This record gives sequence, C-alpha cells and structure tokens, in this order.
Amino acid sequence: MSEISPIRWKGSHLELLDQRLLPQQEVWIALHTVQEVADAITDMVVRGAPAIGVTAAYGVVLSARHQQQHDAGSWRTGFDADMQMLAQARPTAVNLGWAISHMQQLVEQGADLDALEAAAIRVHEEDVAACKAMGDYGASLIHEKTSIITHCNAGALATAGYGTALGVIRSVNRDGHLLMSYADETRPWLQGARLTAWELAQDNVPVTLISDSAASYLMKNRQIGWVVVGSDRIAANGDVANKIGTYQLAITARHHGVKFMVAAPTTTIDMQAATGDDIPIEERSQDEVLSVFGNRIAADVPAWNPAFDVTPASLVDVIVTEKGVIESPDREKIAAHMRQGE
Amino acid sequence: MSEISPIRWKGSHLELLDQRLLPQQEVWIALHTVQEVADAITDMVVRGAPAIGVTAAYGVVLSARHQQQHDAGSWRTGFDADMQMLAQARPTAVNLGWAISHMQQLVEQGADLDALEAAAIRVHEEDVAACKAMGDYGASLIHEKTSIITHCNAGALATAGYGTALGVIRSVNRDGHLLMSYADETRPWLQGARLTAWELAQDNVPVTLISDSAASYLMKNRQIGWVVVGSDRIAANGDVANKIGTYQLAITARHHGVKFMVAAPTTTIDMQAATGDDIPIEERSQDEVLSVFGNRIAADVPAWNPAFDVTPASLVDVIVTEKGVIESPDREKIAAHMRQGE
Repeated sequence: MSEISPIRWKGSHLELLDQRLLPQQEVWIALHTVQEVADAITDMVVRGAPAIGVTAAYGVVLSARHQQQHDAGSWRTGFDADMQMLAQARPTAVNLGWAISHMQQLVEQGADLDALEAAAIRVHEEDVAACKAMGDYGASLIHEKTSIITHCNAGALATAGYGTALGVIRSVNRDGHLLMSYADETRPWLQGARLTAWELAQDNVPVTLISDSAASYLMKNRQIGWVVVGSDRIAANGDVANKIGTYQLAITARHHGVKFMVAAPTTTIDMQAATGDDIPIEERSQDEVLSVFGNRIAADVPAWNPAFDVTPASLVDVIVTEKGVIESPDREKIAAHMRQGE
Repeated sequence: MSEISPIRWKGSHLELLDQRLLPQQEVWIALHTVQEVADAITDMVVRGAPAIGVTAAYGVVLSARHQQQHDAGSWRTGFDADMQMLAQARPTAVNLGWAISHMQQLVEQGADLDALEAAAIRVHEEDVAACKAMGDYGASLIHEKTSIITHCNAGALATAGYGTALGVIRSVNRDGHLLMSYADETRPWLQGARLTAWELAQDNVPVTLISDSAASYLMKNRQIGWVVVGSDRIAANGDVANKIGTYQLAITARHHGVKFMVAAPTTTIDMQAATGDDIPIEERSQDEVLSVFGNRIAADVPAWNPAFDVTPASLVDVIVTEKGVIESPDREKIAAHMRQGE
C-alpha cells in the first residue's frame, strides 16, 4: 500500500500537495510563512479537518520562528495576532482551533522553537497513527463482504495519511470484506471524483464513481451495507458536521436500513458545541456552484453554496475514533469516550 | 411571460433548440428525416418526456412522407422499420412510444399525409394546453407563500411549452405564492443549472441554484413547502420514473414533512407497467459522470450512470395531470383518473 500524504515538513518550511489541481496535476507548494499557511487553508490547497489541523500546527511553528527572529523581546504580540488570523482561515473544521490551542499551550509552558517543531511533528505522526487505529476499529464492525458508499474525501489526502473514512475502507479491503466502494462525486468541489477516486485507485482499492444523486437508487439496487464518512466537527451530543450532502445520505441510509458510520479523531469532537446548532457552517462563493474548473456551467442566476451540513446524532449508527467505537452516540457516551485513557 | 418552446414545425422539416448547448448558445437544428429525429432524441438535442413525444410525432410525419415518395406501393414496410427504429431512441420516456402508437393508429385508419401532419400539430398544441392545465391544477393546491424545490428540467424546454413541474411553478408565481424556486443542478447532465435556471430567469421567476447535495439541508433550514418534479413514465400503481436523484428527494421530502408533487400529462402514465419494476431504466455513458462539458473532472476510475430512478407511489403526495389531481396515488385512483372524460 502506498503511503499517500498531502503534507511534508521540510525543516525550514512546509510543503503541501495542491489538492485543487488533482488528479490532473501533482504539484507541491512551498509555504514559508504563517500567512501563506492560512491562505492555503482558506483557498483549499489543503482540506479535510485532520489535514487542516496538522498544517496549522506547522503554521504555528513558522509564526513563532518569524516573530522571535523579528522581535525576540515582545514576539508574543505578533505571534498572538498570527494565531487569531490563522484560526479564522476556515470556520467549520474544529481541528484547526484544536491544533492552535495545543501549540499555544506549549508556548505558555515555555516551549522553545525546537520543542514547538517537535510538537508539530508529533501532531503529524499521531494523526497517521490515529487514522490507522480508526480504520481498524471501523473494519472490526464489518464482518461480511459488503459495498460501502463514501462522500467527499475523508482520505489520506484529508489527513496526514491513511484517512479516516477511507482508512476504514482501506482496512475493510485489507480484511477481504470490500465488494466495492462507491465514491459520491461531491459537488461542487468534486472531492469524490477528483481525490477519493484518485487515492483509492492509487492503492488498488476497488472504487466506482457516482453522481451524488444516484446514492439512494444505489442503496435500493445494490448490496450496500454501510455509508462511511469523515467529519469536520462533532458536537458534544453526537451531531456531525461534514461536507454538504452528508445529511441527505444519512436520511436515505436510514430509509434503506444501511448503517451510517462517522470516522474522525477525538480532536474533531468539540465539547464546547452542545449540539450541531452551535457549529458554524461555512458558506462559500456561489462561483463554486455556477462553474466547474473555471468553466461557467449555469445560466445567469444566483446560487446558494453551504459547504457543510449537520447530521443529527439520531441518524448516526456509530462514531469511530482512535480510541474506539461509540455506537448510537449521545451526550453521555461521548463524554465517557473523551475521558477514556485520560 | 415569454413563450419558450424547444420545438418548431416548419412544414417541410422540424427544428429543435439544441439543449446540449444551452445556456451558452441558442442554436436551432433542422431535421429532415426520421433518422435525424431519432438521433436527436438519443443524443439529447431534445429531452424531457413530453417534448420527446411531440418530436416523435413529427418524426412519424417525416417518415411517412419519405417512404410514400420512395415507394408508394409498399411504403408501409419501410415505415414500420422506421417506427421500430424511432421507438428505440430512448427507453424510459413512455411518451415516445405513446406518440408513435397514436400516429400509427391514424395510418391504420387510412389517414393521408395532410391528416398525419395535422395530427402531429394537434399533439404539439395539446401538449401546451395540457401543461397550462397542469400548472393551474398544481397551483390550486398551494394556498400560502412558500418555496419550491425542483429537479432536472420539467419545463417549457422539456415540453412543447410552459412545462409540467415548471408549469406549476409558473402558475404558483403568477398567483403570488412563490417565495423562491430552488433548482437542483442535476448532475451529471446539469439540466437544472443549464435549462431550468435559464428558462425561469427568462420568465422572471425567482430561482436559486443549488448542488443536488444541498436539498436536504435546504429543507431543514428554509421554508420549503413542496418538491415539484416531472416524470418520464408513471406505472399503473403510481410509481414514478424520473431523473436520477428524484427518489432521493422524495425520501428526504417525506423526512422533513415537505409535500412531493409530480406533474405529468396522462400520456406519461403507462397502464402496461404494473409497477416501477416494469419500467426500463436507461444507463448512459460513464463519460457523462467522468467529464463536464468535455473536460475530464475525475480520476481514472469507472463510473455508474443510471439516468433515471423510480420513486414508489408511497412517497408521492400528489400527481397532477391535465385532467386534474390524484392525491396519494394508487392503482384504483389512477385507473379511475385515466377513465375520466373518456
């Protein structure tokens, strides 16, 4: 199995695989400043909640280095401003805020630049390990050959490697239980058509692409056992924010008796968000709907482009994290899960 | 209100508005033979079940003229072969077969070329009248200001004019009851983004475009009263074949308490199809999913591209035809409706 990862730390700077150009081109972009890191997150050079978290951790390192070099005495003023700027790069993925807070705590505790760099590398490595653990926990729930639908890209490209939802699919395939994975193309940004299809094909995982609209007809006519998706933020009660269209999939999965699994690291769980109503939902430019790859597809009308939606916990059969499995998630089970191993 | 129609009979030949090029270009294609008519239907120069029916009726006229000119004595041999060829242009829309049978009956009854041409013009005119009747029946069910979601293009462009589902939306707007119409973009062929958005904007009907995946989140967050769609074939029990994604919309409409209306002429009701299982579902080329406007969007993987799906009658709140309204459709109500006025 190849080791796809969209993030490379080069010691002096960060490199990101430009996900806007995949699968046509494989271009790595070098980032030397925290502003460049924030812009790369906003512009979706990198996307996927865990990958955004890892990227942000390196952004913190770049900021601390620059600010200390610039003004060793009162560097914290510039650093704090950088952190506020970085935190606003995208609103929905909680991993962004988690990574910044985690690194800021180390600064508070007096960590020097070497310690900060080591901490960012640890965030990076732990994300890969978390994905592999999640993949195996998810696969442990699937005992027979079945087909799986996934939405967006919760893959190696959305993480430091292996993926969350696609980590589960990789592990199911390794165990010999995957008949077929179906990737929703995931309009408007086509993460499924471009990224999920690309990375599963690279790893020789069987994958077939469908229009987002075909998922329910697929559930009715083929042997679909599970929908497996990632998440950008999970509320304390188990409500799941994820790519627009996830909510629709969850409703129709329940209608067909298809199980619905969310794979996400515990850093995606936001205990400050009581319910999904507390999760900010990013609305992106209408151009993403009106055009494809810069070509206008639509007539001259306005478009509405929410990037995420919220699936209520009641439609989620299981959440898988690096710590294990939460079946029929609710406030109590999630609180207990978060305390586990502390 | 403009009188948009995609079909013009020119006496000597037929002209179709090339719907593959809208909204970027408005190009009319001249068709002089039944083979050209069949190809235009297969290649989706014209689409939408009622428009396909009207187009086919003119195709029958072109065939009869040509064959009689070619071999006045035994012209029926070539004509019958033409009819078989034409009937296979697309499998799902029953209006195609209906129009051919209707015209063939007239031939059996000894109609001459002038009578056949007059009959095709009558099919054309009756389709516009049917759409206007349907629009008003549909609008009569909507008594308060509300927003409506529609899928694909069941509009003037899918009929001889005014539209089925979009006829209802036009009539609701005329009555002052339309807050907003939301057009699903309708991947892979983008009928919503290209055609529905275009024709509603032309008629100054308020319309906003959404990705197909955003429909459920929209139902949850905005004041959506109805989903209104057309149909390519309705079985005798009320199961509705329509553009892929309609089934998904019907499931999520029911989940949110949003009413689901199907607007289609009685020529769309196929009493020979006992249930939706008897309706052939066209699978189209995977290229439609893998590319947009000839630009490859997807990684190198296979795609599955069913063009239609079947919504069970149990998820349909009302079917509207030119004869009136069928609430909670079932076999008995549909049979009674078809007998009405006979």
